[in-house]
Amino acid sequence: MQFSSRSVETLVEELTRLPGIGRKSAQRLAFYLLKANREEVLGLADAIRAVKEQVRTCSICGNFTEDDPCLICRERNRALLCVVEQPMDVLAVEASGTFRGLYHVLGGALNPLEKVGPDDIRARELVERVKKGEITEVILATNPNPPGEATAHFLAGLLRDLPVRVTRIARGIPVGGDLEYSDQATLARALEGRKPMEESR
Amino acid sequence: MQFSSRSVETLVEELTRLPGIGRKSAQRLAFYLLKANREEVLGLADAIRAVKEQVRTCSICGNFTEDDPCLICRERNRALLCVVEQPMDVLAVEASGTFRGLYHVLGGALNPLEKVGPDDIRARELVERVKKGEITEVILATNPNPPGEATAHFLAGLLRDLPVRVTRIARGIPVGGDLEYSDQATLARALEGRKPMEESR
Repeated sequence: MQFSSRSVETLVEELTRLPGIGRKSAQRLAFYLLKANREEVLGLADAIRAVKEQVRTCSICGNFTEDDPCLICRERNRALLCVVEQPMDVLAVEASGTFRGLYHVLGGALNPLEKVGPDDIRARELVERVKKGEITEVILATNPNPPGEATAHFLAGLLRDLPVRVTRIARGIPVGGDLEYSDQATLARALEGRKPMEESR
Repeated sequence: MQFSSRSVETLVEELTRLPGIGRKSAQRLAFYLLKANREEVLGLADAIRAVKEQVRTCSICGNFTEDDPCLICRERNRALLCVVEQPMDVLAVEASGTFRGLYHVLGGALNPLEKVGPDDIRARELVERVKKGEITEVILATNPNPPGEATAHFLAGLLRDLPVRVTRIARGIPVGGDLEYSDQATLARALEGRKPMEESR
């Protein structure tokens, strides 16, 4: 296919590398950018450059930040620590609006198939943080899938002898979900995790 | 929702403006870019900047190009002219690998609801090009939807008195398609446009 412009071809190739963007979507985005106003397009280019040049990893929690330590590590309640796999998960927990404690971003989950072992997931850093003694509860909020469950078990083991409460997020029917369409494992967990009515509002 | 980084928030906002990218996809892309290697990310930022700074519209065909006139206008057979709505359509026709003539990009299709009239679609420029006399056939390859059909009819009217053959791309069942799942209008067109077997290989 002959492109009439080398820079459009280059842009399409760069966009195609992004996750979830195929060649057709990349073309559509490229043509959108060609038509969009100059400020918007240069704004996007600058924003992409800025995240790469200004964003680093918080040395305490492992989340992305511009300032080290990050705002959450500096300002939040230090008794509660929520352990998640990825920075995206921090956003998800923040969006729920119910958690005001600290985070610990593992950077992954144990996965022998993908060769992710204990040394690849900031597990030792978690133990060190807990040993400092300010944290009273560690909430294991890894994903409820096999790597996430394996990671939660592994971390619970590491923390067993430390003076800290270790909890796991609840698994059950999603709010707004349908019993009829729930899978067996979820429904089993929902039954297992049942609570007295007065506590389950 | 509190982001731990202002530049990540800015990037997510910029990405959300793109067509077909919602907030969730924008977050996913932003986190991908945060993890991707520096060269890839800066390459994308530069490619975006480059299309805006280097790409212009070809003064002859209206397609995007870096050099004016574009490569296609300089090098191709001048007897055949394919009229399309958008630069994306040029790519689609080029990808078919069967057309070696020139293009005329209208920049849209007549659409009273969106206030796109004859003066908005490079119709006059088309007539001027045809009047120069090199073109022997104009292929109207606007989309087979109401605005595209209206545009094809309108352009055919404008070209009626000029010494040029005016044709319309065929409408019918897509190759690999299924009669059973074709809509009535497409099937009607496919029957109407039937050809003797020996011509339809």
